Amino acid sequence: MAPASSVAVENLNPKVLKCEYAVRGEIVIHAQRLQQQLQTQPGSLPFDQLIPIIFLPLQILFCNIGNPQSLGQQPVTFFREVLALCDHPCLLEKEETKSLFSADAISRAKQILATIPGRATGAYSHSQGIKGLRDAIAAGITSRDGFPANADDIFITDGASPGVHMMMQLLIRNEKDGILCPIPQYPLYSASIALHGGALVPYYLDEKTGWGLEISDLKKQLEDARSKGIDVRALVVINPGNPTGQVLAEDNQYDIVKFCKNEGLVLLADEVYQENIYVDNKKFNSFKKIARSMGYGEDDLPLVSFQSVSKGYYGECGKRGGYMEITGFSAPVREQIYKVASVNLCSNITGQILASLVMNPPKVGDESYASYKAEKDAILQSLARRAKALEDAFNKLEGISCNKAEGAMYLFPQIHLPQKAIEAAKAAEKAPDAFYALRLLESTGIVVVPGSGFGQVPGTWHIRCTILPQEDKIPAVITRFKAFHEAFMAEYRD
Amino acid sequence: MAPASSVAVENLNPKVLKCEYAVRGEIVIHAQRLQQQLQTQPGSLPFDQLIPIIFLPLQILFCNIGNPQSLGQQPVTFFREVLALCDHPCLLEKEETKSLFSADAISRAKQILATIPGRATGAYSHSQGIKGLRDAIAAGITSRDGFPANADDIFITDGASPGVHMMMQLLIRNEKDGILCPIPQYPLYSASIALHGGALVPYYLDEKTGWGLEISDLKKQLEDARSKGIDVRALVVINPGNPTGQVLAEDNQYDIVKFCKNEGLVLLADEVYQENIYVDNKKFNSFKKIARSMGYGEDDLPLVSFQSVSKGYYGECGKRGGYMEITGFSAPVREQIYKVASVNLCSNITGQILASLVMNPPKVGDESYASYKAEKDAILQSLARRAKALEDAFNKLEGISCNKAEGAMYLFPQIHLPQKAIEAAKAAEKAPDAFYALRLLESTGIVVVPGSGFGQVPGTWHIRCTILPQEDKIPAVITRFKAFHEAFMAEYRD
Repeated sequence: MAPASSVAVENLNPKVLKCEYAVRGEIVIHAQRLQQQLQTQPGSLPFDQLIPIIFLPLQILFCNIGNPQSLGQQPVTFFREVLALCDHPCLLEKEETKSLFSADAISRAKQILATIPGRATGAYSHSQGIKGLRDAIAAGITSRDGFPANADDIFITDGASPGVHMMMQLLIRNEKDGILCPIPQYPLYSASIALHGGALVPYYLDEKTGWGLEISDLKKQLEDARSKGIDVRALVVINPGNPTGQVLAEDNQYDIVKFCKNEGLVLLADEVYQENIYVDNKKFNSFKKIARSMGYGEDDLPLVSFQSVSKGYYGECGKRGGYMEITGFSAPVREQIYKVASVNLCSNITGQILASLVMNPPKVGDESYASYKAEKDAILQSLARRAKALEDAFNKLEGISCNKAEGAMYLFPQIHLPQKAIEAAKAAEKAPDAFYALRLLESTGIVVVPGSGFGQVPGTWHIRCTILPQEDKIPAVITRFKAFHEAFMAEYRD
Repeated sequence: MAPASSVAVENLNPKVLKCEYAVRGEIVIHAQRLQQQLQTQPGSLPFDQLIPIIFLPLQILFCNIGNPQSLGQQPVTFFREVLALCDHPCLLEKEETKSLFSADAISRAKQILATIPGRATGAYSHSQGIKGLRDAIAAGITSRDGFPANADDIFITDGASPGVHMMMQLLIRNEKDGILCPIPQYPLYSASIALHGGALVPYYLDEKTGWGLEISDLKKQLEDARSKGIDVRALVVINPGNPTGQVLAEDNQYDIVKFCKNEGLVLLADEVYQENIYVDNKKFNSFKKIARSMGYGEDDLPLVSFQSVSKGYYGECGKRGGYMEITGFSAPVREQIYKVASVNLCSNITGQILASLVMNPPKVGDESYASYKAEKDAILQSLARRAKALEDAFNKLEGISCNKAEGAMYLFPQIHLPQKAIEAAKAAEKAPDAFYALRLLESTGIVVVPGSGFGQVPGTWHIRCTILPQEDKIPAVITRFKAFHEAFMAEYRD
């Protein structure tokens, strides 16, 4: 018996084989390879030589993932001060600390440590997270929504992803259990549904109406799935949208809540971009606020809201903090969720602390307020300008149409690819948008994700591009992109 | 249709319902309730009134989980200095920092930041973890084992648990895929196998020979499982043992490696207690070192080693750091592991940094070396004394026999329960050891986990008790335990 061959792709869990995650898929792995090549053989790629001309020091520009600090965004000072003090509480006893840290960071760190049993930031916490930090998160939600939130409903998680997996694991029994997901969607959902062996039931966002969510389409897809024997258990809504960047109108949210209530669906609300809104005529409303303002209480609707420290103006992806707020589930079901959370013991305490901080940033009157506010506003205003500049640039190019990013961190332009390009892609055994993205990468060093990784109306082709390159780099990104696209079209124009 | 009832225990994923995790199970939840009761109604429980007499300020004493810092163990100063500096790198520019932090912590933080692209500790990293930190971990393994380790084989994880889940997810296709696990075992394994729908194939550790691992029993259980149509895919070995505390002899490890090679099994080596060894005649050998010293290379044996920052002398449970080192898998299989890691983006960067630190602590000549060595030795020597004191105390009690804890953080004494106690447990609808543990909790505030949560030879009853209460509390723990046990035996003696 040859032991090494005892494990082969052929005998792995087929759910793992089926799962796809394009945000870190083939194109990104190729980009990592190119980055290594540039380090060992400088000047060996076309865009490498462009640098002196267009002043873009990042050789490979990763626009594939919402990872702001990887592209130079600085963390909010107050948050990091508190984290450093909580990591090394001895500092709080030292005189020099007062000159190194703001007074409110010191008092916040003391306050946080006082809520941690034994001030032990190195201990496993309660499986849902430290009670005092959940109290703080609940207070932040209450003040955001104007409706009460409860620490017992909060499960602090390592970013939003583990919360999503936990809910999928809970709800999906077999391939006949379905989850309604938007198309395009963030591929965490399709990956998690595949890993848990369920059925993704798609509903299409309408590109023509700025990625509108039509209740009529939801209903049609639900009925269609039911007619095939699928037990549809939940509806995923991503608001603001990823990859699509739309912000749902309040009326639309009312209809969605009513739809879930009437159809007996769990509403899984991905609200991780709640701070990322770039237009004056839209604001973020949590689905819980909408439900409560309709008079719906615990008994009316099982609802989960996911939040993360990775997004917003904070962009602390590497800290892996986040939470889910769970309402409308019976006590025995909550016990099962608690048990699953317990198997992983707890989320990381640094992320837990940060989750409490982003829901309770400095307030008027605090020493750090002015600098905090300035940092936050600068980031959000710059993101809004970057989104607009990229949107405008895309829309000026032949065969590209791009909706506005009202929120989130992405643009999802449609690329009307010429037939000749589609055939070239076919010959190269690539999806046409993957073919385009690969050519873009090889010509410019810009990494985007093909729309096929998110799902799209058949026969349409898109790319997802983050709005995260630093503002002074945006003109160079546009110049490079434009040059590539014009050359591509010249090569393949029908 | 009543939506809230659309989700009920009856229609949850049966794998979730089946999963059990006693380390945070019924008794622990009851203990949390009692702790709240003590806060709101002081003096309302019997042991609460004992406090003035036996001087044990912790009212509920959580000995259910290996969580050293929750019971007062202090973090290693050097590690926390580096973490604080990496969390708030601005400190590195300030003059005052030199008087607050040791010189080698400052230089280590600078060195770590230099390996992080853009010094961005708030960015998602490579899905396997930051390359420079994986290099450091690989260097630590190389120096520990005397055989080379490779950064590409390291997957940094949020503690060891996510790595275990990832491997189970990869290997288990259905209920006909089996994983050989020791009995007693750490219930993460049974929980993860249940969640992924596989079969736990038990092999029994021999209590009479100090929890010895007999190859003949392994072979018997393997053949037995195969005869039932189970495709046994992997062998879990926990060394040092949890809950059993034994340290495997080198000869035994050779036999285990040979067994896995001959039988085509993946060897899943839980090596999280590698620094926790309390006897002079035993030392830790990683299974990779054993395999390489037998001349077995990549092609001979698929082998995974799990390590964690939660255990050892560091005990940094709340930081959720750890890694798995994967060798002997083909490139296509590794790609699947990489993909699954990617869906969760990356583990938390604080935990990643800490994982690199525990594998590369200060060295002779570094400014922190003396204080680091003193902190480490004090913790490990004290743990050895506590293990011995509790073991001796258990062995003095009527009907209790307790093997030595050669390593890890637990004692797993056998309680020879009188028939009358077993009947009382039956009447109370509890497993006899759970009945005993519950009575212990209610009488003394000491929380232990019943052996039934780990598995045990049918008809035997155990408890798992950590050795972690601070040393000055140990006499009081023993006094309380003894008083309880004597009263219990007086009540139930046959």
